[in-house]
Amino acid sequence: MGFRTRILGAAAGGGLPQWNCGCGNCRRARAGAIAAQTQSSLAVTANGRDWAILNASPDIRVQLAACPALAPTGPREVPLRAVLVTNGDIDHVAGLLTLREMQPFKLYATAGIHEVIAANPIFAALKSDMVRREAVALEAAFEIVPGLRATLFPVPGKVPLYLEGEVVETRAMGEQTVGVRLDAGGLTAFYVPGCAALTGALAARVEGADLVFFDGTLWTDDEMIRLGLGRKTGGRMGHMAMSGPEGSIAAFAPLRIGRKVFVHMNNTNPVLDPGSPERAEAEAAGWIIGQDGMEITP
Amino acid sequence: MGFRTRILGAAAGGGLPQWNCGCGNCRRARAGAIAAQTQSSLAVTANGRDWAILNASPDIRVQLAACPALAPTGPREVPLRAVLVTNGDIDHVAGLLTLREMQPFKLYATAGIHEVIAANPIFAALKSDMVRREAVALEAAFEIVPGLRATLFPVPGKVPLYLEGEVVETRAMGEQTVGVRLDAGGLTAFYVPGCAALTGALAARVEGADLVFFDGTLWTDDEMIRLGLGRKTGGRMGHMAMSGPEGSIAAFAPLRIGRKVFVHMNNTNPVLDPGSPERAEAEAAGWIIGQDGMEITP
Repeated sequence: MGFRTRILGAAAGGGLPQWNCGCGNCRRARAGAIAAQTQSSLAVTANGRDWAILNASPDIRVQLAACPALAPTGPREVPLRAVLVTNGDIDHVAGLLTLREMQPFKLYATAGIHEVIAANPIFAALKSDMVRREAVALEAAFEIVPGLRATLFPVPGKVPLYLEGEVVETRAMGEQTVGVRLDAGGLTAFYVPGCAALTGALAARVEGADLVFFDGTLWTDDEMIRLGLGRKTGGRMGHMAMSGPEGSIAAFAPLRIGRKVFVHMNNTNPVLDPGSPERAEAEAAGWIIGQDGMEITP
Repeated sequence: MGFRTRILGAAAGGGLPQWNCGCGNCRRARAGAIAAQTQSSLAVTANGRDWAILNASPDIRVQLAACPALAPTGPREVPLRAVLVTNGDIDHVAGLLTLREMQPFKLYATAGIHEVIAANPIFAALKSDMVRREAVALEAAFEIVPGLRATLFPVPGKVPLYLEGEVVETRAMGEQTVGVRLDAGGLTAFYVPGCAALTGALAARVEGADLVFFDGTLWTDDEMIRLGLGRKTGGRMGHMAMSGPEGSIAAFAPLRIGRKVFVHMNNTNPVLDPGSPERAEAEAAGWIIGQDGMEITP
């Protein structure tokens, strides 16, 4: 007995199509030529009855409506027991506002991320007598849902964009950006939707895992700039690219991992187009390109 | 030359289906037996090129993806020029977080509502050099998009749920809950998605309008309580019901209005089911039940 995972949303912030984007992928998604993808979220369960959601995306309402396993089982009964957020980015916390309907669950995050959320009065919509906010220490395993243990650990990253000051540390290690280790029935998975670099320590941590979901934001570090859609590199945004000698595909190549799945793809990433050579290259390197609704069991 | 309106979302907060709701309407919507509806928002234009959105719902990404008239016209060009919010409720402001992608537009609201938004650091995602926040005085007309004038006016209502204290004034008149009058080419429309009572002054204001969109949250004041889904009346939530001697259908009956459209329907409202006797009753009284994607021109 292990656990089940379901990708609720495979895209990065903005989704595919992104509301204001006329790039090739967004135009093809609007035309129905490639599959639309909602924003970054993963659902997990060990027993099939009690679910946790890792990251609450702005698209959570449509994501849940498309997921029969998470549909209400009574007038106000749902299988959702816990929500965990891995950073304070809008694509990972805005969906909490949708979960406001007087429904009890536990909200797990580091103390640092809880502070970011609590600084906003609007999140009082999650009433304290309904939603218990649990501060989780780094490296301390806890049972997120029955039969499934979770452990948070720091990964190189940065504060949310809306909190950036004049100087931004893009590879900070601390409570602002974390990954999640999941353990059940002797199987191990990792969920790391945002990561600026695969450090040696991080590589050693994931080595031997049965399943890894990893940051697939960009194909190349300067993708947004070359397309004329932004002024920032992936590194500046706190994300390592997939391709190139410094990329995640190269970094993971020597590691023994059961299955490797890219998630959190930006709308500009060519791998979102099933016909692209980049998609073929990533798949040839042993990666699965995550898709909305995909269920992957380690 | 008048103007065009498009209902982006016809449902109240939570939408249809609501994520945690197993009521009859939500079950039927999940099964595809009745149409799903997204949350409260109206798009308006006078020239067909420059659009304003009245209320930014959490569903705005899927709403815009379903609306060709608002699709990007270039890599980062969109026809959206302005967003106006009529209160600080989550179903009306959370979508602002989705509009964060470095896109210029004007954000119109009363000073009181701007204060509610600005108290949340997360809305700094709308960068001040991109999104100009314009405080609009009550009763002062302004050009919201070329050729279309808008005027805000107070309607009986309350502060957002997440700001409620121990004592709540549910029919307060001020800057926290407003309606919008729209004027173009000699035609007049009103948009009032939340309203606790049709006062004499409000009735006199809308008298003779070509088009009115009005608060259709509940069919009966005790609807949530009777269904076992809540402890609050419509009145307590700041919404007048459709039916009964105190309801909006009765209140509007003596008024001369070109077209009357209910919007902001809660998922429990029986009019959302096209086969319901309540729907027939509302339509017999001259009301249109708003639906996602419906375009209505005064």
